Amino acid sequence: MDSLFTPSSIAVVGASAVSGKIGNTILTNLQNAGYKGELCPVNPRGGTICDLKAFKSASEIGHPVDLAVIAVPRDSVLGVLKDLIETGVRSVAIISAGFSEVGREGWLLEKQITELAEKNGISLLGPNCLGLINSSGGVNASFATGNPLPGTTAFFSQSGALCVAILDWALEAGVGFSKFVSLGNKAVINEASIIEYLGNDPETKVILGYVENIADGRNFMEQAVKVSMKKPIIMMKAGITAAGARAASSHTGAIAGSDQACDAAFRQSGIIRVDRLEELFNLAKAFSCQELPFGPNLGIVTNAGGPGILAADACGEYGLRMPSFSSPTIAELQPMLPGYASIYNPVDLLRGADADRYRKAIKVVGHDPVINSVLVIIAPSENMNLKEVAETVATCASEICKPVFCCLMGRKNSEEARSVFAAAGVPVYDFPKQAVRAMDSMYRYAVWKGRASRTFEIPDRDYEAAREVVDSALSSGRSELVEFQARDIVTAYGLPTPESDLARSGDEAALLAERLGFPVVLKIASPDISHKSDVNGVWLNLKTAEEVRNAFWQITAQAQRLKPSAYIAGCLVQQMASKDAREVIIGFRRDDQFGPLLMFGLGGVYVEILKDISFRLAPLSVEDAGDMVREIRSYMLLKGVRGSEPADFDAITDVLIRMSCLADDFPEIYEAEFNPVLVSSDEALVADARMTIVELPSAGKESDLIIDEDLSKEA
Amino acid sequence: MDSLFTPSSIAVVGASAVSGKIGNTILTNLQNAGYKGELCPVNPRGGTICDLKAFKSASEIGHPVDLAVIAVPRDSVLGVLKDLIETGVRSVAIISAGFSEVGREGWLLEKQITELAEKNGISLLGPNCLGLINSSGGVNASFATGNPLPGTTAFFSQSGALCVAILDWALEAGVGFSKFVSLGNKAVINEASIIEYLGNDPETKVILGYVENIADGRNFMEQAVKVSMKKPIIMMKAGITAAGARAASSHTGAIAGSDQACDAAFRQSGIIRVDRLEELFNLAKAFSCQELPFGPNLGIVTNAGGPGILAADACGEYGLRMPSFSSPTIAELQPMLPGYASIYNPVDLLRGADADRYRKAIKVVGHDPVINSVLVIIAPSENMNLKEVAETVATCASEICKPVFCCLMGRKNSEEARSVFAAAGVPVYDFPKQAVRAMDSMYRYAVWKGRASRTFEIPDRDYEAAREVVDSALSSGRSELVEFQARDIVTAYGLPTPESDLARSGDEAALLAERLGFPVVLKIASPDISHKSDVNGVWLNLKTAEEVRNAFWQITAQAQRLKPSAYIAGCLVQQMASKDAREVIIGFRRDDQFGPLLMFGLGGVYVEILKDISFRLAPLSVEDAGDMVREIRSYMLLKGVRGSEPADFDAITDVLIRMSCLADDFPEIYEAEFNPVLVSSDEALVADARMTIVELPSAGKESDLIIDEDLSKEA
Repeated sequence: MDSLFTPSSIAVVGASAVSGKIGNTILTNLQNAGYKGELCPVNPRGGTICDLKAFKSASEIGHPVDLAVIAVPRDSVLGVLKDLIETGVRSVAIISAGFSEVGREGWLLEKQITELAEKNGISLLGPNCLGLINSSGGVNASFATGNPLPGTTAFFSQSGALCVAILDWALEAGVGFSKFVSLGNKAVINEASIIEYLGNDPETKVILGYVENIADGRNFMEQAVKVSMKKPIIMMKAGITAAGARAASSHTGAIAGSDQACDAAFRQSGIIRVDRLEELFNLAKAFSCQELPFGPNLGIVTNAGGPGILAADACGEYGLRMPSFSSPTIAELQPMLPGYASIYNPVDLLRGADADRYRKAIKVVGHDPVINSVLVIIAPSENMNLKEVAETVATCASEICKPVFCCLMGRKNSEEARSVFAAAGVPVYDFPKQAVRAMDSMYRYAVWKGRASRTFEIPDRDYEAAREVVDSALSSGRSELVEFQARDIVTAYGLPTPESDLARSGDEAALLAERLGFPVVLKIASPDISHKSDVNGVWLNLKTAEEVRNAFWQITAQAQRLKPSAYIAGCLVQQMASKDAREVIIGFRRDDQFGPLLMFGLGGVYVEILKDISFRLAPLSVEDAGDMVREIRSYMLLKGVRGSEPADFDAITDVLIRMSCLADDFPEIYEAEFNPVLVSSDEALVADARMTIVELPSAGKESDLIIDEDLSKEA
Repeated sequence: MDSLFTPSSIAVVGASAVSGKIGNTILTNLQNAGYKGELCPVNPRGGTICDLKAFKSASEIGHPVDLAVIAVPRDSVLGVLKDLIETGVRSVAIISAGFSEVGREGWLLEKQITELAEKNGISLLGPNCLGLINSSGGVNASFATGNPLPGTTAFFSQSGALCVAILDWALEAGVGFSKFVSLGNKAVINEASIIEYLGNDPETKVILGYVENIADGRNFMEQAVKVSMKKPIIMMKAGITAAGARAASSHTGAIAGSDQACDAAFRQSGIIRVDRLEELFNLAKAFSCQELPFGPNLGIVTNAGGPGILAADACGEYGLRMPSFSSPTIAELQPMLPGYASIYNPVDLLRGADADRYRKAIKVVGHDPVINSVLVIIAPSENMNLKEVAETVATCASEICKPVFCCLMGRKNSEEARSVFAAAGVPVYDFPKQAVRAMDSMYRYAVWKGRASRTFEIPDRDYEAAREVVDSALSSGRSELVEFQARDIVTAYGLPTPESDLARSGDEAALLAERLGFPVVLKIASPDISHKSDVNGVWLNLKTAEEVRNAFWQITAQAQRLKPSAYIAGCLVQQMASKDAREVIIGFRRDDQFGPLLMFGLGGVYVEILKDISFRLAPLSVEDAGDMVREIRSYMLLKGVRGSEPADFDAITDVLIRMSCLADDFPEIYEAEFNPVLVSSDEALVADARMTIVELPSAGKESDLIIDEDLSKEA
């Protein structure tokens, strides 16, 4: 991708002398940015464009260029690309629009372009994009107006409109960029490849991104998890809500993956997710100029009570703490501040605070070993020499080996002070909450970087046995496994189930129950009934042979009446769970973008009504499995309340890890749910399992399948 | 309060000729604002200050002034105030600090000032405040730098530092104010009185406020509920989290009420609560220039996909809907837009959209009867004539009788367009989310204004019987009612309880159980044991006389062993709840600022672990009671899941309303909890009740009590 970002020669295909035309803007942007390499306008009419000799075609240039920017009408793009490939072009940015975002015809054209680029090993940006900017090389190969300031933050965006707006805001806010990339339709270069590239870019310290969908979830996570250990990746993903996702798919031809899957992907790869565009920059400011804190403890120095309270509120809302200072700190603060001043956290220097008072307080607070980072709030007051205060705070910040942030209340007459902070690398915010949010993100990122490496355990299992069940079900054309098939797979994967057996008559059921020991559960056994409760097909707590006989008769009769077409094999007789057992649900669903998304929650109302569910993507590490269990709101119920025994956590995580393994082993299993898993203090029994299977498309058929899907959508 | 805001004469006591002194800034601010009334500097040295004759004392002025602004050292304030009162001053703003915010001495001084002002009927602002501004009368009686622009938004703030910062931001953002008030320590004028005044101020269309505590909750609600039916009140309350509340009480001498109470108060009085300072202004912008929408249906017109998705996401996050357009709209849009354009909601005009395309689309969408408000997103593109687009959008907005908002992506070169929108009264936002948040608030406010008036029912109850119980408990020095006392009150308030009776021996218990019918519950009966479960004092589901006898013996023995000092009256024998009964908890706690705060939740883990509780302040209307029940996350469990019968909602709301009535009838009851209330499909039985009572201070004693409290806090 180097040829894209640091090209020694650039061709602008579709260059124009007419101001306002895209082909003109790109050329002049390159000239204005001070691009030093060879610049070749290409226009069939030749002549001179922007004081440069224009070539009539790419081949006329006579040697391969590193980068070709294509800004010609859509229907000429493919031809131009072929020409360029013949000349040996290394990378291409297609500005032209009208491809997959507009329907079938464009989609097919884009597919041809993609194949061509991939076959010839060409880095291709776009189509339907704004271009790219590398501020260090004078490469402004975009039609955005205005050159960004140089900086250490890279930005990529799926939306061109946001690129334009963001360049604007950044210019006004004085934020600089190392690289600036408009991904457009992501035909070849997508968020995964750009993150990989930026991860290795020494000029980039922080990566920002805006996406509406993730093209290749697994690869994306693989790159992101590597890069985020080196530098922070801060991303916004739009299309979160159902309404947003609908807009996303109609506008960019992107099918948004489920947001839970995306959220899990971001979390599992250490990406810092934001939900406001403003936050992208508020966080970038912090990460680009301050070191990570060693802990969550924030010390606040302010000259006004109100903003101090707002900062404290924000600490409570996010995860930071405002501990009491150590006693030497309090002893030192007391004599140096007026009698009225609060010497606790936050330290209130009062309205009359000058530079000297700030210096003393920041130094004492900053050196308190309890404190991990310092927030300095400045509310300019009538006689304050703001510049002097800013210089003092900046000096103190450089002397304390901890992150120091500043909140400067009010914008008027603060330009000078803001420049002082910018030069010193102290991030400045308008509102306390923004500063605390940024500090909290840095702390969380530090925790993520410092966490133990993940442990992936491959559990023992009888793959062949499970394979046989799945294959036989597929060959019989089933889309849902029958109860005993699912149970065989559960057993093959080393998971315990309550003892149970099939009874074909009431007497047989009573006999089995006596063997298993009362009380027992009776469940309808039919390959045609997957939701047993729909036919009232599960009877609990049957205590006598008589009850069992009666239940058998009623269950089978009712099932036959409600589902006359169903084949009824009889009833399953099952041990009752021990009295202190809690029901949990463990399942997965295959996400289009990210693969198997595992879910965990407490059974019944907790999952169904309170939606108290945790999510992670497979493959699941031991640590992830533990986090899933601890993350649900109702976790305390598993830990045991009011004297009840804690659940067997190892057994739960074992089920999660084995299910994750199953999901990875069998792409044919589209969905699976163990519900309930009966968890007591010393085991977790999979009492019921359901699995949905699909025939996998053979490799050769895949692309046909996609085209068919597309057709059906347009119909 | 008119004398404060529209004074015909103003004395500045502590006026100074020295630039930079507060007494000088106030005087020059008044002069620069063009104040036309009589302006009297007061300074013991006399002479001329800022070209005005200075009076040596207030009495030298020779006639009473409407407003005196006091900016003298703290210890002179009381003397100055007495002088002013002798001259007949009508209102006073005390700028000087050093009062209740700094400790006991200042607190006592503030108390004297308050009493003096109240006795003489003087409107007193502050102390420890910035002053006030009435932009229409040229009254800038503050030491804030810079005159605010005139406008229709009023702002009041408890924090002076925020006032300064906000004036700053507002000037930069071009936001104008009708009134601007710094409340300071709120000795006399507080949020309640200022809201009342601003509610009647014809120059104010929108009221904004920032507070750290609410001084007199009941009065505040009474004023707010009246005013918010006339104009929107948008408020931020800091000190939300425990950390913030600690900072709030150490900094401003304010004891923050619990945030749940405050939240309930805001909701019940129609106040729009925000949790970011930015939002105060984002909302003010919307409310001050657009009409309220008639429904939640938003139509979006954009020229870029990305921002459209962000807006759709925001709709999902807040409560707005993005319905499909009606078919005539779609039919009209189709021919007027390029083939690629999305003609569904959001309408995507594509990158090349010009003023004409915007006009056509906005008109069609705006006239669709399905749509209640329109959001126009403009992402400036290379060849767009932004000013022309802005003018067109503004014209369309004025022609459509629905609220129209604009989101203008990017700030550069947009000044002209922004002025066009400002002049036309179309609110403009930088980010789609801000616009949607504002539109959602307007919709919610419209719903609040349009809601049916509240119905307050006073239930039949035997007040005298309950009074007797409370009085007898108080006279015996109890702080907690004994079970049967609490039950007597429950009965006196017309609430059903499960049949139960006291048994003094195991045999008596068995007899009673047989009379009530098995199964029964046994509960320890002791005036000294309020948490029965601590002594394992509740045994459920006893099915035989033998079990009851055994339980009696074990319960009493264990209680005696664990609490040897407790007097054990025996056991209460109680009917078991019907099988489908659900347990709910209904209680109240008396909030210092807002009075009884009622709580409702499902019993057990739902309240204790999931914190799934709804809150309202008494007195509770029938509608509020219904909202409380519907608001909890676990509401579906009451509605009935999987075939279980729905709970008796009328019975639940009846309990809530009777408890609210009880709370209002008996200020002596400090806390009460009905737990559990057993709710079946046709009744709600109060199975257990606890109440804590306190001796009320007699009227004469009250102020002593408060002083004592203060002493004890300082000790």
